[in-house]
Parts: sequence; structure tokens; C-alpha cells
Amino acid sequence: MTYKFSKHVPQSDVDAVGDILKVAGDPKVTSFAGGLPAPELFPVEEVKAAANRVLTGNGRAALQYGSSQGVPGLRQVILNRLEIEGIKTDSDHVMVATGSQQSIDLTGKIFIDEGTTVIVEDPTYLTAIDVFRSYGAHFVGVDMDEDGMKMDALEEALKNNPDTRLIYTVPTFQNPTGRTMTLERRKKLVELAGKYDVLVLEDNPYGAIRWSGNNLPSLKSLDKNNHVIYMGTLSKIFSPGLRLGWVVADPKLIKKYTMMKQSADLHTDSLAQYIAAEYFAENDIEDHVTAITALYHKREQIMVDAVDKYFPAGVTHSNPEGGMFLWVMVPGVADSQKLFDAALKRNVAIVPGDPFFGNESIPGTFRMNYSNTPEDKIEDGVKRLAEAIEEVMSK
Amino acid sequence: MTYKFSKHVPQSDVDAVGDILKVAGDPKVTSFAGGLPAPELFPVEEVKAAANRVLTGNGRAALQYGSSQGVPGLRQVILNRLEIEGIKTDSDHVMVATGSQQSIDLTGKIFIDEGTTVIVEDPTYLTAIDVFRSYGAHFVGVDMDEDGMKMDALEEALKNNPDTRLIYTVPTFQNPTGRTMTLERRKKLVELAGKYDVLVLEDNPYGAIRWSGNNLPSLKSLDKNNHVIYMGTLSKIFSPGLRLGWVVADPKLIKKYTMMKQSADLHTDSLAQYIAAEYFAENDIEDHVTAITALYHKREQIMVDAVDKYFPAGVTHSNPEGGMFLWVMVPGVADSQKLFDAALKRNVAIVPGDPFFGNESIPGTFRMNYSNTPEDKIEDGVKRLAEAIEEVMSK
Repeated sequence: MTYKFSKHVPQSDVDAVGDILKVAGDPKVTSFAGGLPAPELFPVEEVKAAANRVLTGNGRAALQYGSSQGVPGLRQVILNRLEIEGIKTDSDHVMVATGSQQSIDLTGKIFIDEGTTVIVEDPTYLTAIDVFRSYGAHFVGVDMDEDGMKMDALEEALKNNPDTRLIYTVPTFQNPTGRTMTLERRKKLVELAGKYDVLVLEDNPYGAIRWSGNNLPSLKSLDKNNHVIYMGTLSKIFSPGLRLGWVVADPKLIKKYTMMKQSADLHTDSLAQYIAAEYFAENDIEDHVTAITALYHKREQIMVDAVDKYFPAGVTHSNPEGGMFLWVMVPGVADSQKLFDAALKRNVAIVPGDPFFGNESIPGTFRMNYSNTPEDKIEDGVKRLAEAIEEVMSK
Repeated sequence: MTYKFSKHVPQSDVDAVGDILKVAGDPKVTSFAGGLPAPELFPVEEVKAAANRVLTGNGRAALQYGSSQGVPGLRQVILNRLEIEGIKTDSDHVMVATGSQQSIDLTGKIFIDEGTTVIVEDPTYLTAIDVFRSYGAHFVGVDMDEDGMKMDALEEALKNNPDTRLIYTVPTFQNPTGRTMTLERRKKLVELAGKYDVLVLEDNPYGAIRWSGNNLPSLKSLDKNNHVIYMGTLSKIFSPGLRLGWVVADPKLIKKYTMMKQSADLHTDSLAQYIAAEYFAENDIEDHVTAITALYHKREQIMVDAVDKYFPAGVTHSNPEGGMFLWVMVPGVADSQKLFDAALKRNVAIVPGDPFFGNESIPGTFRMNYSNTPEDKIEDGVKRLAEAIEEVMSK
């Protein structure tokens, strides 16, 4: 039969990033491509104990249909996490989502029509681009530097696109750059959101994993007029497999999110929510986050040291104070894909920069992940990657 | 700030069905309103044992990011279930979804544009209507009788709406009517799908729960040309809380579904998928389904006996051979909401018929659920409901 697809569906069946991750999964390959947490730190025993307690004490509720807004116990855990991040609120402002990805998808569905302008950082989280595009978004990318999105460029974009409905930002340890927006720019961004009356979607998956510099207030905590929708997740500090994230917003908006979530998947897995709530009640998450941070810092140092030692002169990189990613810029290379191909020939995988841009990409860029590679494999992988870069630069 | 919503979002914040379920949750109320399985049959101990084994043997994988198409072990379980249902296929044809609800949502996103015609049974599953509407569907409802969708009416609808992309049907123990489509009509439906080159979305959440009559082949098993997309779920035979469903289709379509699922929530909870696969490996699901079927049948008999005894003359109802729902038609009542109001005054809850229709509703209809009400409460609830119906009919 002939299939007639909606305009939401990409014309092409090519899943460039999926294909990259597939080759990166080859055991021969040292992969800096994915964005996975280190599984050796997953609190498997503690989760097992939590699952046991939940199924002993609350089994029927954990296996039954639940509320679209989320299990109250988990929403309380989320409120506690938000308080650490300077956001004092109540459970009417919180909805549990099936991972951050769902928070992004629902945001797209709620706010984006064909042609709606969405402002994004250049570069930004690639699956957010896919989602917003599927709802018809028109992207306006805003330049960044090591201090995050440039505020003069943002104001210019807002002036030139008065129909903008949404600014999507990952202000802390951004994906893919690892960069963090300064306090001054955070204040300015919230001010501009008010001045131009647009919403900000603040995505903060990595913020807790900081090894240097000071914690900075979230945009949400600086926002006095409900311009900021905040997203969090347990994927990076607990477990990505359980798919537990949240949206924090004005209760009026949470009502819309909850209605759309009901259409999307009725509710997030009850058992996973109960297990997470139980885990947080019985364990000290700060100890666990400290262990994650120490390991990722160690891996990042090994990677940055090797990059500085082996990469050709002229190649620059970001300097993350936390999170999972390093962003590399290679001068004089027009096609980032060539960097990927040359690296893969040497059994190293990276993600070339292109899919992280809503429109035109910055050539010669790529993302490296350090959280998921054992320490003893990083230097050697970087060395081979350096050879690949040299080869591409010399052509 | 002023929120500008997309056209996907319902204008109204009123969630009629949500409000009904809220009042139905009052412990004073005998609720026939929801559509919940009987929690006393959930295999809590077996799930606890499965969770223990998964976290002992496979903990890191169960807590890590996973494939958008689903955990291989669970896809094998799904293939086994499909074989019981007469569908012989392989794992390229199967994607795990976050409950059936997500299968419906992704189907809407993949196939429906503003104004796309979707043919539905009159009445049909209400949240499917919400989802399809959010993508801009134009509904054409097709009349049913006790043998399911009427095929002459369906062909008429297909002729009059040559732009139809999708026929959504729940052929077995339909929600809300409990009706089952005959074999003859199933064959005809598949034939019409071929003749008019439209897709059929076959939703089969209840099919395994049959206490009388013969199993009928699924539409998918009758389909030779990939016109049928099949949806299944573990919600009614195992646990709805875990949110595990699946889509079965042509691999070309599964590729699209998987791409859109990646945007929607990356993947379904890994731990839940591993636990379900482990449960099915170690337990006899047929024994469990037999227990569910016996209990629901008992409750259905008590309900139907009481309905036949107490409801006023002229009131008719469906005669389900399985599943969870009874559909009631009250003659001479224009506004189904009045039936709800009169029932609630007597502390009984039902779902009035209106939200189950894409366009115009059949007046004086309502849905009753029997799976979730203890046997000793059913007769008394029906008796009070009968008084409510009498009151409304006599006005």
C-alpha cells in the first residue's frame, strides 16, 4: 500500500545520529560519541532494595494506572531537588514526564505551530531540534561563546522575530558544548524574556554535576513573571533507563502539559516513580552525585590533557566546569563529517557538529563525551583522533 | 505573561472525563466509571521476584539508556503473544511503546495533518479521539451494532471521504461498548482497506480476556498487504502501571514509528521492559489470564443480571463476551449528562456517552465498567443507578 505521511514526519529515513551511535557501539571502537552516564556508578543494589520495599508495601498501586501529573511521593522528591536549585515552589507547579525528552516533546506540541519561531543556542541539543522541527518550528540560532548565549545576539534575534514563542536553552554544562551561561547573562535573558514577552524553556539535565566554579542560579529562580518553564531529570544523577523527568511551570501551564501528557502516554511508569521516590527517601543522593562528579571530572581531565597534548595547533575546545561534553573546533575544515570519517577509520567515534544546529552549522566542529569511557582508554583514543584531525586539516 | 498556544492544544481547560474520574474516586461512590483492571489480581510477588532477578543479573543495562525500538527480550515476548493471536512475524515488525496510548499518539503524529479524515467507530475510545483531534483530524463516525462496525456504512464513509488515511478500530470487546466485530466483517474491513488503499489501526487491549464465544482472528492476521497496523499492550493482562505496549507493522513503518518515538521519549523504561520479559519467562501468563477472565466474567454476570432485573423497560445494553465494559442505551433521554448527574446524586458513577463520539453522539448512552468493582458492591450500585435512570426517563 502507499503510505501518506503527515508533515510531522521527516522525509528521509536516514537517522544520521542513530547510524553514528550504531558504528560507535562496535567493541573495536573507542566511542566519544554517545551521551551515556557511566553505568558502573548506577546504584543497582539500592534500586533493588527500593524495588523490594515498594513491591512489598505498595505493590498494587505501583502496578496500577496512576495520575498523569505523577506520583505524589516523586513530586515531593522533585520539590526537594528544586529547592536545592533555588526554586521554591509547590506540587501544583510540577508534572512528572517520561524523561526530559517528553518534556521537550510536549513543549513543542503545546507551543509550536507551522512556522512558529523558536530561538535556540548555536549549537544545541540535537533531539530538541528534531522535535521542534516535527511541529513545524522555524529556527533562529543565537551565537554562543564560552559564557553561553550572547545576549546582544539574542536581543537582535528577538527584535527581528517578533513572532518568537520560545527560547530553548541549556544554560549549564550545555549539550553539546559543555559551556555555562554566566550569572549576568542569565539575568539579562530573563529580562529579555519579559521585555519581549516570550517563554524560555530551561533544560537542566547536567547542572548537579559540577567540579569547579560556583553554582549559578537557574533562570527559573530569577524569573518573577512565569516566563520560564524549567525541565529537570533523574537521568544523569540516578538512572536514564527509568525515564523520569519533570516540568516546572505556572499551574495554568501544568494543566495544559498534563492534558497533553494524558494523550501522549496517560502517565509515566508508576513502578519507576515509586522506586525513585523510595530510593531518594532511603539514600543520600548528594553522596551519589559527589561520586559521579569525581569520576566525570577525572575522565574530563584525562581527555582535556590529552587533547591539549595531541591535537594540532589551532584546534580549540570548550572548558566545561561540569557535565558530560567537550566541544571541539577545528579551523579550516569545511565538512565536519570528514572528521568523523577519518576518526572512524582509526576506530574512534565522535559526533560531528552539523546536527546540533537548527540552520547553518559552524564547520569543523564536533562533540566529545567523556562520562562513558573508562579512564585507560581515553588518552589512546584522543591520540588516534588527533591523527585523524591532522589528516583532515592537511588536505 | 500571555501564553500563545499551538492549535494542538484544546481551547478549554475543562477535562470532562478527568472530572468524572475525580468524583468517582470518592470512597462513598460506587464507581462503574473508570477502566481499571482489578488490582487484587496483579502478580505483585512475581513482579518482585522478576525485579530482583533483573537487578541481580542485568542491573546496569536495566538502568541505562536503551534502544528506541525496545529491549530484545520483551520484543521476543511480544512475538510469542502475537503468534497466539495468529500473527506470525519477526522483531523487525515490532516496536515497544510506552503503553498503547503512545502507539495511538505516534500514529496520529505520523499520519494526521490538519483536516485529515480519520474513520472511527461510533462510539470509540475517547482518548484516541482527543489524540487524533490534537493533530487536526476530521472524524467520520461509522455506525455499529452488536456485530461491530457496519461494513456498508464503512464503505459509504470511504466513498464519501476519498482523503481518508486511517480507520481506527477496537474490533474485540470494544471500549466503550464491549462489542466484538464478527469474522465476516473483519474480512470485509480488510478487503475495504485494500480497495480504498487506507490504513487500519487495530487496537486490541482486551482480546485475551474472553469468557464466551470463539477467538476471532485479528485484522492483522487477515491482512496480506500491510494495510493493518496492530497495537497490543500488557496493561490488561499484566500491569497498566508499567506502561508497556507495542506496535506491529511493516518494517518501513516501524522505522518511522521508532524515529518519532525517539523524539517523544527516547525509549520506554528499560527496567519495566526487563521486568516484564523476566516475568513472562518465569510464569505462565495463560494461568494468569484465566484468573483475570474468571473474575471479570463473574463481575460481568452480576452486573448484567442486576441491570436486567432493575433497569427500566426499554433500556438496552451490549452483551460482551469478554473485556471490561458494558454499553447502555436509555431511550428518550436527550442529554446523557443528566444520567450521570442523577446517578452521582445516588453515589454511583458512570461515564456518559458523549466523549466517546468523534462528532454527534447517540443520546441517552453511557459506559459501565465491571472489572474494578468488588462483587458485593455491584448489585446495590446497579439498583441505585436504575433509580437514577427512572428519574431521568420520567422527566
